[in-house]
Amino acid sequence: MKGEIVAVGTELLLGNIVNTNAQYLSQKLADLGIDVYYHVVVGDNLNRLTETIKTSLERSDLVITCGGLGPTADDLTKEGVSQAMGLKLLPDEESIEKIKRMFNSTGRLMTENNIKQGYIPEGAVVLENNNGTAPGVLIEKKGKIVIMLPGPPKELYPMFENKVLPYLKAKANSTIRSKVLRVIGVGESTVEYMLKDIFDSQTNPTIAPYAKDGEVHLRVTAKTDIPEEADRLIAEMEQKVRAILGDNIYGCNEEMLEEAVLKLLQKKNLTISLAESCTGGLIASRLTDIPGASASFVSGVVSYSNASKVNILKVKEDTIKNFGAVSPQTAEEMAVGAKTLSSSDIGLSITGIAGPDGGSAEKPVGLCYIGIAAGNSVNVHKIMLNGNRNKIRWSSSSRALDFLRRELLSM
Amino acid sequence: MKGEIVAVGTELLLGNIVNTNAQYLSQKLADLGIDVYYHVVVGDNLNRLTETIKTSLERSDLVITCGGLGPTADDLTKEGVSQAMGLKLLPDEESIEKIKRMFNSTGRLMTENNIKQGYIPEGAVVLENNNGTAPGVLIEKKGKIVIMLPGPPKELYPMFENKVLPYLKAKANSTIRSKVLRVIGVGESTVEYMLKDIFDSQTNPTIAPYAKDGEVHLRVTAKTDIPEEADRLIAEMEQKVRAILGDNIYGCNEEMLEEAVLKLLQKKNLTISLAESCTGGLIASRLTDIPGASASFVSGVVSYSNASKVNILKVKEDTIKNFGAVSPQTAEEMAVGAKTLSSSDIGLSITGIAGPDGGSAEKPVGLCYIGIAAGNSVNVHKIMLNGNRNKIRWSSSSRALDFLRRELLSM
Repeated sequence: MKGEIVAVGTELLLGNIVNTNAQYLSQKLADLGIDVYYHVVVGDNLNRLTETIKTSLERSDLVITCGGLGPTADDLTKEGVSQAMGLKLLPDEESIEKIKRMFNSTGRLMTENNIKQGYIPEGAVVLENNNGTAPGVLIEKKGKIVIMLPGPPKELYPMFENKVLPYLKAKANSTIRSKVLRVIGVGESTVEYMLKDIFDSQTNPTIAPYAKDGEVHLRVTAKTDIPEEADRLIAEMEQKVRAILGDNIYGCNEEMLEEAVLKLLQKKNLTISLAESCTGGLIASRLTDIPGASASFVSGVVSYSNASKVNILKVKEDTIKNFGAVSPQTAEEMAVGAKTLSSSDIGLSITGIAGPDGGSAEKPVGLCYIGIAAGNSVNVHKIMLNGNRNKIRWSSSSRALDFLRRELLSM
Repeated sequence: MKGEIVAVGTELLLGNIVNTNAQYLSQKLADLGIDVYYHVVVGDNLNRLTETIKTSLERSDLVITCGGLGPTADDLTKEGVSQAMGLKLLPDEESIEKIKRMFNSTGRLMTENNIKQGYIPEGAVVLENNNGTAPGVLIEKKGKIVIMLPGPPKELYPMFENKVLPYLKAKANSTIRSKVLRVIGVGESTVEYMLKDIFDSQTNPTIAPYAKDGEVHLRVTAKTDIPEEADRLIAEMEQKVRAILGDNIYGCNEEMLEEAVLKLLQKKNLTISLAESCTGGLIASRLTDIPGASASFVSGVVSYSNASKVNILKVKEDTIKNFGAVSPQTAEEMAVGAKTLSSSDIGLSITGIAGPDGGSAEKPVGLCYIGIAAGNSVNVHKIMLNGNRNKIRWSSSSRALDFLRRELLSM
């Protein structure tokens, strides 16, 4: 099957936003074994949009659009697709009711133009949107498929996963299966070096590394006619890779580091509390982003000022005076403080310099200390990170979670 | 002048990388007053590439390609453009010499396929590459312009700045300037409704709304021959929009909500502490993401368990027992608790049900209470949000920051 992705929106053509939807959809279609030959971006202009859809339908079996489904006069994707395919756009009572209900339930005023979102091309399937007001649309006509998705990734991703993926899986003919092994603690070039023999000899399954947010993701992909055979090939490859990378692999597929940590905590029936300085709540936020975090996560303190380290976490004033807020001694007392304050099994602390200011020759931007208090002992780890404030905050939160994970594995 | 950007590379169609070059080039062309009507991505395939360039040349005056200029058999952009334009590809001695010198100077072995990079379409201008081996190419023929740039941003950006920008500046006849007004607290359809008269009568400057992460961004764009005139037109339009939307506009261009809040806190010389439940540290993380947050942000408590609300924030056990952890009463005591614990001027609290579990008929998923304690008074706001856990957490953190912003404006 030949696929094509058409993003609709003048904001893309002005360079206000980058076309991450095309990347997301491309990855998903590649996993399904659907060849993507083109991406197109077209603005909020009915003529150009209609012409674009016509061209796409001539050369591709599957056209996925994103954007332009909203309530405003600029939102023209359904109009363009309907014109290109010779379909009427009709009110869909169920969709309109749902939009009205969404406005009612949140107490917001529904303006008349919102009704437009409930108009659907004749004969099309409505894809319910649980994260916004504009429903998606799926059309099958004369062997061609057009799928229209909303533009915001928070709406597009779940709609694709829940509605489109199962539909396309049933359509795709040969089976491509893949599994991602998620690696942390070693860089991409080191992973490549460690796995050189495997990389050099790969045919089916293939294995490809991607660096992402300080992690390395290894995608193992097998292509066969029999699904079970693909699974067997992937399992064999995974075994080989695990024999070399060991505990550096923290999870698979969509599993995030914070999920892996929470799973270990739950498995070992342990609770945790945090004391964060440089990460300013990012570790707490990452952990509580996972449903069910409350089973293990008790509390977090963002002790941004020295006074809050002393008053809330009971770090000794002398410790800060003698060694500084960014020191192994402060990290240690913060970890113990967090653990004690919440009577949890483990206290995890982090203190460091995220920049851009606050660094010195002795304590440069990127220096962080991570403390882990468990039972009667505390381990403190020192790390040095590169990059801007954002990157340092993210990487240090990941390293803290990874140190915790490795400690939990050995408990 | 109508422009179009064609990115060449199968890695884009596989979703391995995101098309940031298109965004960069779009912004640059917009600044020059060149209208970009299309982005296209095509793979490393000579037929599809040639057809794409033909189509682009039919509808656009200026086609900028990126990628596909390198030494490997996959690099086919010059071949495709030459075929589409009916030009021969000839060796350019100067370029070939330069490539040889680059290899010599770094001591790397030059393989034979590198010579290919020195082949240039007849009559074209060579754009020297000081950051890589593949030169760029500029062709003018029958009123059409094709500019081929290398794919790596480290090579493309300086080549564009140094060679292409001066060339296009001389060609372009007008200036486009734009400004983004960032709106929160009212939805996209309401904004459109409120600004209907402006939207209906817009010509120059134009104004376009787009929804992003629970906010609405209004882009005002003016096109004139004189840059000062564009600024004046934008200022006039901004005044009209502000007269209608008022405090719903929190900032301009790249300014984020958390920045606007921190600026207000600093301006009014006030400090803040947080008590977060459902957002789990997200508000703290957003605020401390901004450099210099420490001037106003004292501490945050992520009181995920009831015990931590009682022990750390001194919420009364009876309050939780009688009204529940998600209640206006608990929100109020959390806000006061945060303020007292850190002796800050303001205490901001949030407690709610982010889901997917934990909801009931009486207290459904999406219900949140936000408390703001300042001086001797506490205001509590109730909100109801839609969406998945992620969206509820994000939206509720935004609403909390927005309530705080509005309260600060009135202080």
